[in-house]
Amino acid sequence: MDPWRTAIATSDATNIWVRGHAVASLMQGATFTDVIVLLHLGRLPTPGERRVLDAILIGVADHGAGAPSCAAARLAASGNRSSISSAVAAGVLAIGDDHGGAGSNCMELIAKELGEAEREGRSPAAAARRAVETAVREKRRLPGLGHRVHTTDPRVKVLFDLARAEGLAGKGIAFMEALEADARVRIKPLPMNVDGALAAVLHDMGFAPAAGRFLFIVGRVAGLTAEVAEEYAREKPMRITFDVQYDGVPPKPE
Amino acid sequence: MDPWRTAIATSDATNIWVRGHAVASLMQGATFTDVIVLLHLGRLPTPGERRVLDAILIGVADHGAGAPSCAAARLAASGNRSSISSAVAAGVLAIGDDHGGAGSNCMELIAKELGEAEREGRSPAAAARRAVETAVREKRRLPGLGHRVHTTDPRVKVLFDLARAEGLAGKGIAFMEALEADARVRIKPLPMNVDGALAAVLHDMGFAPAAGRFLFIVGRVAGLTAEVAEEYAREKPMRITFDVQYDGVPPKPE
Amino acid sequence: MDPWRTAIATSDATNIWVRGHAVASLMQGATFTDVIVLLHLGRLPTPGERRVLDAILIGVADHGAGAPSCAAARLAASGNRSSISSAVAAGVLAIGDDHGGAGSNCMELIAKELGEAEREGRSPAAAARRAVETAVREKRRLPGLGHRVHTTDPRVKVLFDLARAEGLAGKGIAFMEALEADARVRIKPLPMNVDGALAAVLHDMGFAPAAGRFLFIVGRVAGLTAEVAEEYAREKPMRITFDVQYDGVPPKPE
Amino acid sequence: MDPWRTAIATSDATNIWVRGHAVASLMQGATFTDVIVLLHLGRLPTPGERRVLDAILIGVADHGAGAPSCAAARLAASGNRSSISSAVAAGVLAIGDDHGGAGSNCMELIAKELGEAEREGRSPAAAARRAVETAVREKRRLPGLGHRVHTTDPRVKVLFDLARAEGLAGKGIAFMEALEADARVRIKPLPMNVDGALAAVLHDMGFAPAAGRFLFIVGRVAGLTAEVAEEYAREKPMRITFDVQYDGVPPKPE
Repeated sequence: MDPWRTAIATSDATNIWVRGHAVASLMQGATFTDVIVLLHLGRLPTPGERRVLDAILIGVADHGAGAPSCAAARLAASGNRSSISSAVAAGVLAIGDDHGGAGSNCMELIAKELGEAEREGRSPAAAARRAVETAVREKRRLPGLGHRVHTTDPRVKVLFDLARAEGLAGKGIAFMEALEADARVRIKPLPMNVDGALAAVLHDMGFAPAAGRFLFIVGRVAGLTAEVAEEYAREKPMRITFDVQYDGVPPKPE
Repeated sequence: MDPWRTAIATSDATNIWVRGHAVASLMQGATFTDVIVLLHLGRLPTPGERRVLDAILIGVADHGAGAPSCAAARLAASGNRSSISSAVAAGVLAIGDDHGGAGSNCMELIAKELGEAEREGRSPAAAARRAVETAVREKRRLPGLGHRVHTTDPRVKVLFDLARAEGLAGKGIAFMEALEADARVRIKPLPMNVDGALAAVLHDMGFAPAAGRFLFIVGRVAGLTAEVAEEYAREKPMRITFDVQYDGVPPKPE
Repeated sequence: MDPWRTAIATSDATNIWVRGHAVASLMQGATFTDVIVLLHLGRLPTPGERRVLDAILIGVADHGAGAPSCAAARLAASGNRSSISSAVAAGVLAIGDDHGGAGSNCMELIAKELGEAEREGRSPAAAARRAVETAVREKRRLPGLGHRVHTTDPRVKVLFDLARAEGLAGKGIAFMEALEADARVRIKPLPMNVDGALAAVLHDMGFAPAAGRFLFIVGRVAGLTAEVAEEYAREKPMRITFDVQYDGVPPKPE
Repeated sequence: MDPWRTAIATSDATNIWVRGHAVASLMQGATFTDVIVLLHLGRLPTPGERRVLDAILIGVADHGAGAPSCAAARLAASGNRSSISSAVAAGVLAIGDDHGGAGSNCMELIAKELGEAEREGRSPAAAARRAVETAVREKRRLPGLGHRVHTTDPRVKVLFDLARAEGLAGKGIAFMEALEADARVRIKPLPMNVDGALAAVLHDMGFAPAAGRFLFIVGRVAGLTAEVAEEYAREKPMRITFDVQYDGVPPKPE
């Protein structure tokens, strides 16, 4: 493990002084994104890796006040005005398989299919072909493909251009591009979304699938804090209300 | 402190066996509400106290899927389908000063005004008169009064009738009834709500103001678990959506 | 669905008045445990079911300040003294598969094995035998059996005696007793623990496996609120500290 | 409000396409830290502001596995292994006045004292003198001063050197340096800590006091995700245990 990781992680009293100096040294020259990589991979990123990570964290930082994480944070802030931590935490708790989990799920697909392909001497394109065939046969959706608005998601192009310009494009990108092309033929046009693109790039940078979730949380918390700050500054307590149509049996007359 | 509290709280390995037996003994004869009182007051309640506590916990258990706590729990369940704990916790996090805090705030008012009145030899009615005068002068709302639908909240009558029937009605109830009557004359008709009633009754039973919040959480978590169970059983992931009208400056053309 | 469920769940403005009256009616005669059942099953329990549920909720309400949920709640209270909700929610978040999930996991085993046995015309005892055989073959632990202190857990006897006295003992209890007996012969003496007992009883009362988790949370939140109340009342902020021995590479000299 | 903020915040369906393009544009050239500032201040930072913010976020990102936030996250991960969000949220919930709140509290002191001084035509040094006098008279601790290990905290020097080199040092830094010097004379040597330094710098950059809490959370969540990732990867469930010595009355003999 890289010594820098040590510097960050140690907390026994004897080492706090040393740690203070090590962190001070990072503060002089590194960026926050450098330290996010250091904490997760135990090493500082190359300048190219840092650029790509910055783009990914920006890509997930916020998606408007109506995304489940942001809405949950604002709702908690609406009822419980005295705790910033509560509101941000409520937002984090809305992140899971169905919201913020697509990148990680797509990384699992990439890791699984490319792993099998490697063991059997097949190319990324062949691996993608098999993934599409499996999805068709098992009637399952492919993670990383499809968007309800964009026909081509501009964020995908930015991420892949950056990765290529920095020499970081590998089998993950090759797999996802083949997956999109095959799905277009075998299923229907399903443009790659930002989750598919960041999954490809993170795979090529050596991150494990779970990192997709962790990095989504790190990025989105930036947005959640801004949403909560705005809710406190601009809105009254209890402003968010719901219309609930009850559809059960009417109550008994008394 | 009552020995039963010991039995519940101890957790060092040597005492787990003893604790197992003590809890087993409670399981044979006590109700859950008995143990809620035991945990908070260090003693088991009288049968009358238990009845009143049951009524209070029922009164706050659920208020429909649109209450901030329930909506936050359902929203978290909507985005993050794999963790029951996350959804319930998100609901708890929406509980605070403005949602679920009114009972506790009202208990603080009662404790403060009755405490001063006692030191100065004034009656609960005089204490209430002064609280209304202060609220009028400082243009502040009185906690425990007012409801957007009911002109008389039927839950108030139930709680006060129960407390009287069980011989538990004291200065807290006297204070809140005088407060409602004075406010009607000096401000406008503001019917006592369930928060005001439970605050009066909990005060008369010897609970500290913070207990208002703790007991609200205990009661509401029963409702939150049911709301989350229904969300999992009946609804699809990501079903809750919001229309957000952005009112800032439009984005720059690129 | 039972009309009472309606009364509790509805929240659209028009029905709040009706709901107020319905809840008031419950407050007059029901216990909190009655309403927990009503919220989850849509019907009030029989007196026998209520007694058994009370025993179960008491059995999980607290397990001392060192249990992960209680420790997490106290730790949050130690760093963040201004939000009761935050501390209780942190405690809830420590509840999952490994802490508080054993009852639910055991209910899944019971439902699966008894379901298959029923379809194939086998008895609960035969179902238990097969579950032990599968566990031995797959080298997996059986949920609901084993305790690090008790050789016979007194809470198990209380729950089963109550269920039998109330006429609620069914195939769930028969299965778990056969499981304990078979495991003693085929594996080693593994006394049934409280999770196994409550799983059997909840199964026999008609609850779905997920209810094991929901009811654990409902019961434990009673204990969490008491733990947090005690932390606020008795302890100073930041009192909980940890000794962390870092075992990575030492930091680089600067 | 700056149009970029629009681009990030909008979420109504019509604007998602526009937003996709705006975010894509940020991804090409900005850093994550740029976007954190954009979300909170509605404008991108200058290169100097970005460097200082990077240093601040690094300074709070992690403080070892024993800090309350990190310990709470690991504890939740220890009991509930199936939800990354739960563990990170539990860590966030331990952040409050006593843990992670010192920067924000110090920003409030700076804003209050400098505000009054400005209205009365006094210098930052005079404002600091008065703050020390008030603290001595009211027997209160001054936020931002004192450290249990360092006699001079190396992170303070790094932050102030950066701020000066980038032309960002203003009255906030002047106030905190005068506060440290005055406290040394009137109270005892209390070296400025990293919270005091970041409070001074954030004040000089135009952030409101609450930003101290929001940015602490943003930075610390990077560390929390790494702590949770390590807990999942290296440790077994339920590995964190506590010795609890119960000090109440012993349980009754049965």
